[in-house]
Amino acid sequence: MSAWLLPDHIADVLPSEARHIEDLRRSLLEAARRYGYELVIPPLLEHLESLLTGTGEALDLQTFKLVDQLSGRMLGLRADTTPQVARIDAHLLNRQGIARLCYCGPVVHTRAATHGTREPLQFGAEIYGHAGLEADLEVLELALDALRAAGLTRLGVDLGDVRVVDAVLDGGALPSARVARIHAALAAKDAVALAALAEGLPAPVRAGLLALPELYGGIEVLAQAQQRLPDSERLRRALADLAWLAERLRERDPDVEVSLDLADLRGYAYYTGVRFSLFGAGGGERHEIARGGRYDEVGAVFGRRRPAAGFSLDLKQLVRLAPTPPLRPAIRAPWRDDAALRAAIARLRAEGETVVCVLPGHEHEVDEFACDRTLVERDGAWVIEPRAASSA
Amino acid sequence: MSAWLLPDHIADVLPSEARHIEDLRRSLLEAARRYGYELVIPPLLEHLESLLTGTGEALDLQTFKLVDQLSGRMLGLRADTTPQVARIDAHLLNRQGIARLCYCGPVVHTRAATHGTREPLQFGAEIYGHAGLEADLEVLELALDALRAAGLTRLGVDLGDVRVVDAVLDGGALPSARVARIHAALAAKDAVALAALAEGLPAPVRAGLLALPELYGGIEVLAQAQQRLPDSERLRRALADLAWLAERLRERDPDVEVSLDLADLRGYAYYTGVRFSLFGAGGGERHEIARGGRYDEVGAVFGRRRPAAGFSLDLKQLVRLAPTPPLRPAIRAPWRDDAALRAAIARLRAEGETVVCVLPGHEHEVDEFACDRTLVERDGAWVIEPRAASSA
Repeated sequence: MSAWLLPDHIADVLPSEARHIEDLRRSLLEAARRYGYELVIPPLLEHLESLLTGTGEALDLQTFKLVDQLSGRMLGLRADTTPQVARIDAHLLNRQGIARLCYCGPVVHTRAATHGTREPLQFGAEIYGHAGLEADLEVLELALDALRAAGLTRLGVDLGDVRVVDAVLDGGALPSARVARIHAALAAKDAVALAALAEGLPAPVRAGLLALPELYGGIEVLAQAQQRLPDSERLRRALADLAWLAERLRERDPDVEVSLDLADLRGYAYYTGVRFSLFGAGGGERHEIARGGRYDEVGAVFGRRRPAAGFSLDLKQLVRLAPTPPLRPAIRAPWRDDAALRAAIARLRAEGETVVCVLPGHEHEVDEFACDRTLVERDGAWVIEPRAASSA
Repeated sequence: MSAWLLPDHIADVLPSEARHIEDLRRSLLEAARRYGYELVIPPLLEHLESLLTGTGEALDLQTFKLVDQLSGRMLGLRADTTPQVARIDAHLLNRQGIARLCYCGPVVHTRAATHGTREPLQFGAEIYGHAGLEADLEVLELALDALRAAGLTRLGVDLGDVRVVDAVLDGGALPSARVARIHAALAAKDAVALAALAEGLPAPVRAGLLALPELYGGIEVLAQAQQRLPDSERLRRALADLAWLAERLRERDPDVEVSLDLADLRGYAYYTGVRFSLFGAGGGERHEIARGGRYDEVGAVFGRRRPAAGFSLDLKQLVRLAPTPPLRPAIRAPWRDDAALRAAIARLRAEGETVVCVLPGHEHEVDEFACDRTLVERDGAWVIEPRAASSA
């Protein structure tokens, strides 16, 4: 096996894409900063039980495990940053009021997720300490602004709420294994399995369950849901919350397409209320690029049950959608043991220019930069000339 | 054991320090960009043999190992980025000419290094494909500019060259175990051990070895070395290279203190020529903050022996030395379901301002931001007023 082969679904990011990712990273962190979200940098490694507490089996299987030589204990390589941020909110900051936090760093998965890499670069923002919908709206608006700052167009928001399915099933008092199978059938939009699982349930619950997979589309879905699902306080609350958010989003930005999907159960173990997916395009097809919602239980295992809402995305996926920025022009300079030349180069760099020195013997190599100008000596002074003229 | 306790020498980076690290990261990457260094992002995980090939035992002991579920093979969590960048230069880019590359990301160590963390945030820059001293000078100048951009003062460069000790010992034709013990004695500046190990060597080699630990100080050290060490072509070449570099550095920036240490053998297994340490202060004491040099052999194991020089530093160490930037002022805004207010906030954020919304019920919480202004409604319009006036 050759020493330069990388493991499957692990890749280097090469210069043009790496620079674009770095630009996007700055755009996203700047967007979060403008909303008052403070940056935190949790570690890559933690005790396994801190990383996995309360997050369910899915994250356990995704987490690489290793042994700490210092303590003999099991460590995990983080597969998600949210449990870490919840820990920071609960213990390190321990603020009474609202905490707005953001992060940007790698996470590692034992197996590749849908879009291919085992090492996503996760950016996210989270708000702790406010149970009202204003927090859900704020993270949604921040997420939309972040995607816009990245250059994405045709933005869309798909809204759902785990409380809708909960409300429908509440009438049934079902054993949890059956509930899990119903969730799986809904997630797979498997109408046949769903019909079988609904057998024998009270008529309104059964009708509601079978109606759920059809409850997706525009804002009109909310009125249909009110009619077709068994009425309850819990259901009405969830539908009203979704209506309020959808209305605010449309008011704020009529160009953003708002849709609803009441049977969407992805991340069910995680979310406790409204959940959303964001879509966008960078010229070509539109893709799902960010996910978020409310996960009020996330800090409970750290001894502090605080309301929480947030979202995250993978910069390595975003970079493939976002329009590539143009190459920054650079200046080509010769190398000579000449103080005046060195001073001229230092001055240009201080002004922010990229100055690439052509080291002795490398005069005929291909430029990796878009050098549109060159530094040349004219009458004893170093001046910049357009590239075409000087290479003539 | 509580779920929120972190492993030893592993820590979260909290908001004020995290923001400062992010600012420093941008400064360093911008400095590298101005020199024409292209960013690459190698993965955190690789096959163990790619990470460790040719780097020696020290890195092996520092590297966390884990099993790839997909292949059953051993993976390593990178403890250093340079072998990865050498692999990228050798195989992915495979350029004939010069490649200038930089990187910034976490590395993980099984045991803590001297300044405490097991998870440094490594920044570095490397130039491949040029054997001449111009490349060594370029990375040194870039490293100095990067530290200056980070706000460090009282910069110093300590120069050495692994070829000096090699040249002294070449006359002896010693077994490698004895050479290793001599290296260890020199690294520890252990004169007693050194004297014992030098017993029986030819007189000029012995005298040279015993002189080495005294050969540190200003530029005059080079002339002393020429007199006290056994003369050879290899020695003269190394001393001339050091003199050339020291002279260029003093010419370029007389404020940078240049010193020499000819017995310094740190990173001996790595470097093949000139090596340097950079020092700086941020108000208090001066510390070693970056290290680099020439490591022409680094790509050989990937089938491509290219000249290489570069340096790296740890941002988590740098942030403790660099002067803390002032808090950016922010604007405090109320929350209301009011399109005009939302538009005013969106406009301010688009201008780059940090606008922190006070969500309903949180009006009396402590601000985490330096909010020096507030958004208030006056005669039906939303305007900014200084904080003191509005909170009255």
